[in-house]
Amino acid sequence: MSNLLDKLNWRYATKKMNPNKAVEQEKVDRILEAVRLTATSSGLQPYEVIVVTNNELREQIVPHAWNQAQITDGSHLLVFAAWDNYTEGRINEMFDLVNDERGFKSEGWENYRQMLLNAYPTRDAETNYQHAARQAYIGLGTALIAAAEEGVDSTPMEGFDPAKVDEILGLTERGLRSVILLPLGYRADDGDWLKDLKKVRRSKDNFVTEMK
Amino acid sequence: MSNLLDKLNWRYATKKMNPNKAVEQEKVDRILEAVRLTATSSGLQPYEVIVVTNNELREQIVPHAWNQAQITDGSHLLVFAAWDNYTEGRINEMFDLVNDERGFKSEGWENYRQMLLNAYPTRDAETNYQHAARQAYIGLGTALIAAAEEGVDSTPMEGFDPAKVDEILGLTERGLRSVILLPLGYRADDGDWLKDLKKVRRSKDNFVTEMK
Repeated sequence: MSNLLDKLNWRYATKKMNPNKAVEQEKVDRILEAVRLTATSSGLQPYEVIVVTNNELREQIVPHAWNQAQITDGSHLLVFAAWDNYTEGRINEMFDLVNDERGFKSEGWENYRQMLLNAYPTRDAETNYQHAARQAYIGLGTALIAAAEEGVDSTPMEGFDPAKVDEILGLTERGLRSVILLPLGYRADDGDWLKDLKKVRRSKDNFVTEMK
Repeated sequence: MSNLLDKLNWRYATKKMNPNKAVEQEKVDRILEAVRLTATSSGLQPYEVIVVTNNELREQIVPHAWNQAQITDGSHLLVFAAWDNYTEGRINEMFDLVNDERGFKSEGWENYRQMLLNAYPTRDAETNYQHAARQAYIGLGTALIAAAEEGVDSTPMEGFDPAKVDEILGLTERGLRSVILLPLGYRADDGDWLKDLKKVRRSKDNFVTEMK
């Protein structure tokens, strides 16, 4: 597609996916790569993406997600799962990786590490999880565009029981909490009430305020 | 730029912007349009973007944002400001707009409106604000890509005192709370410690889990 605005106009929260048309793996891989590359606070990447293609697992999730059929009609279910807490280990792992990859240590960077080590692990887990979950939404904004760039449909879903999804996918023991579901697939020709309806957004005047 | 992954590799959290090079207004407008078009939960768009070019206001913000010079060295400061609460009025305004624009009412859509009216305004304001703030992060993820598409640099900032920024920009009386700052500008040739350093991300193996 020619440009970003065209892509954003093309995409919509697909309500009915074609169960017989799977998304090509190389497209999924490029979508995941876009999410991996985008920004997070302090570069900590405090979330992971679980890619569920297993049918049995996806069928188990459906009743805990308002029976939304895109979860099984799509071919790949992305689950954005945020860290349940910021720990010293997790913070150090990322700072160590940066030093390894860049091949040097710097005082400024080490001071910044120390500041985060003093600030984050001492906060309560819920505050830290909420902060991590916000970062996953940057990834979601990225994934929606990346999918559109590939001509792939997607449906962002907040409407599900996170505790159940965490249990089904074994996320709790990995220190993760599910934040958003994003099935990937291709829109069905028929049966999608939203497909041909106009995308409605507030006017620019009601969304943007200029302070000159 | 050729594709999304190139854009994501090009962008970085610019540490030093060129104070003598303003971003062209039409580029800013396309970045804002991308944010306006992207997804939000139930399509409510529960945030606004404040575009501050006024120098005095930006100078007032700097000391409350760790003295980060990009706020004034850049030409446009975007402030993502989320609704402080979900109210009946705000929800109805969006559902009415959708009906107006599409030219019809549907039972399913009206039932969905009623469900949100029953669920959101009865929750506490902080829960609602946190939910709205997450949506602003979808917008942030979008803005980072939109800026890169325009060859414009940006620096996402969580490190600021929201209460002070709300006061300086008069957001509280408008029922808004500042969530993220995003100065737009062009990277300076000199003085940016991060500009030439390698972008470091966890490996795909440490970021993506496949469940087949």
